[in-house]
Amino acid sequence: MCDSCGCDITPDHSHDPKIVEVHQSLLAANTAMAKKNRAHIEKMGAVAINMISSPGSGKTTLLEKTIEAIGDSLRIGVIEGDIETERDAERIRAKGVPVIQLTTGGACHLDAAQIHKGLHLLEKEPDGDKLDLLVIENVGNLVCPATFDLGEHHRVVLVSVPEGPDKPAKYPKAFTSSQVFIISKTDLLPYFDFPVEEARAEALQLNPKLLVMDLSATSGQGFEQWLDYLKEICRK
Amino acid sequence: MCDSCGCDITPDHSHDPKIVEVHQSLLAANTAMAKKNRAHIEKMGAVAINMISSPGSGKTTLLEKTIEAIGDSLRIGVIEGDIETERDAERIRAKGVPVIQLTTGGACHLDAAQIHKGLHLLEKEPDGDKLDLLVIENVGNLVCPATFDLGEHHRVVLVSVPEGPDKPAKYPKAFTSSQVFIISKTDLLPYFDFPVEEARAEALQLNPKLLVMDLSATSGQGFEQWLDYLKEICRK
Repeated sequence: MCDSCGCDITPDHSHDPKIVEVHQSLLAANTAMAKKNRAHIEKMGAVAINMISSPGSGKTTLLEKTIEAIGDSLRIGVIEGDIETERDAERIRAKGVPVIQLTTGGACHLDAAQIHKGLHLLEKEPDGDKLDLLVIENVGNLVCPATFDLGEHHRVVLVSVPEGPDKPAKYPKAFTSSQVFIISKTDLLPYFDFPVEEARAEALQLNPKLLVMDLSATSGQGFEQWLDYLKEICRK
Repeated sequence: MCDSCGCDITPDHSHDPKIVEVHQSLLAANTAMAKKNRAHIEKMGAVAINMISSPGSGKTTLLEKTIEAIGDSLRIGVIEGDIETERDAERIRAKGVPVIQLTTGGACHLDAAQIHKGLHLLEKEPDGDKLDLLVIENVGNLVCPATFDLGEHHRVVLVSVPEGPDKPAKYPKAFTSSQVFIISKTDLLPYFDFPVEEARAEALQLNPKLLVMDLSATSGQGFEQWLDYLKEICRK
């Protein structure tokens, strides 16, 4: 009952025991499947990263440029996640690497069961079973994907300069659960009020172990550090 | 059982009857509360809009500039939704209008029960019960907020130029459930490949009734149409 107007407020569903139970069982099943995915990816001889950001932060463009720049140094395969459309997979396929598009049909994040299916599909693509690095590009959403382990080894969160520097404080879980924080589209710094060092410090306050990089896929600024990082995590 | 590797794939939770039942009951409770909110807002003599976008699309900046530009023509009150921080409410409070910050503590969208509480809190603020227009700024997320009616009269979805023109096709529900689509930050068009007319046409294919506007809160381009729209929906 609402104290102010006497109407019956909807109960706070986040504390409804039935909903808590369903969510816990869903997350437990996801975590178990993620563990299997990780073992599966390791058996393939690969290392996996899970890229998380808002829509339009430049994940696909970063990936296109990474595939071009890394050349033969690493064999890359990609699983693309989107709610609808095959557009991102088409962009990546044009770069000549094996890619699978997963569409969630409404769901706001990828889950480990989807990635399991994606792994089997990817292995059937030409050279899809000969990878050093598997890149999973999650649905564009800075919130929900942070809760779901997909079986990745490293999680990379991106914020682009036009989005503004307050994102770590406002969307903390993506930053506390990641190993790398990329400030992207730094070629746009002249046009925006984005104090890079303040954003870096705020993210490190949330998660002191974060590796923070700033880069531009357009100008190439900061790209060497990113490529070195990828080569380093894939070193056998 | 997975055909390929024989392991036991996690069931697809979206079809699990227990989860479907819980989600349906949650949505039904939300819809009932949204109806009460709408009646509550109408009793206050106000009209409500629910603003939905990715993080960093410029919702708060648009709102700051709208409050400045509209002056005494409309009495505006604001409910800010964020996962964490009071930052957006502080920015709006500095403009001299009544504002309440709701923090979801992790949840990826506002729901009608939170807005119900927010309405009662807003009414206790100075001039919070004398409004023409209530603006609800949702959590930055282009996916989940689209599913939850908050009791608004009109829904406004924003995409900023740096995010790219493919967002309606990739995140359709926010566009099929909205009345207005704003392409924001148009002062940045010279620096991005964002064909405004193509984005407009794609959104109209999804939802032929959408009112599509392009504007810049920085340069003021397109602002008259936006202010006229707000005055029109609040006309008694």
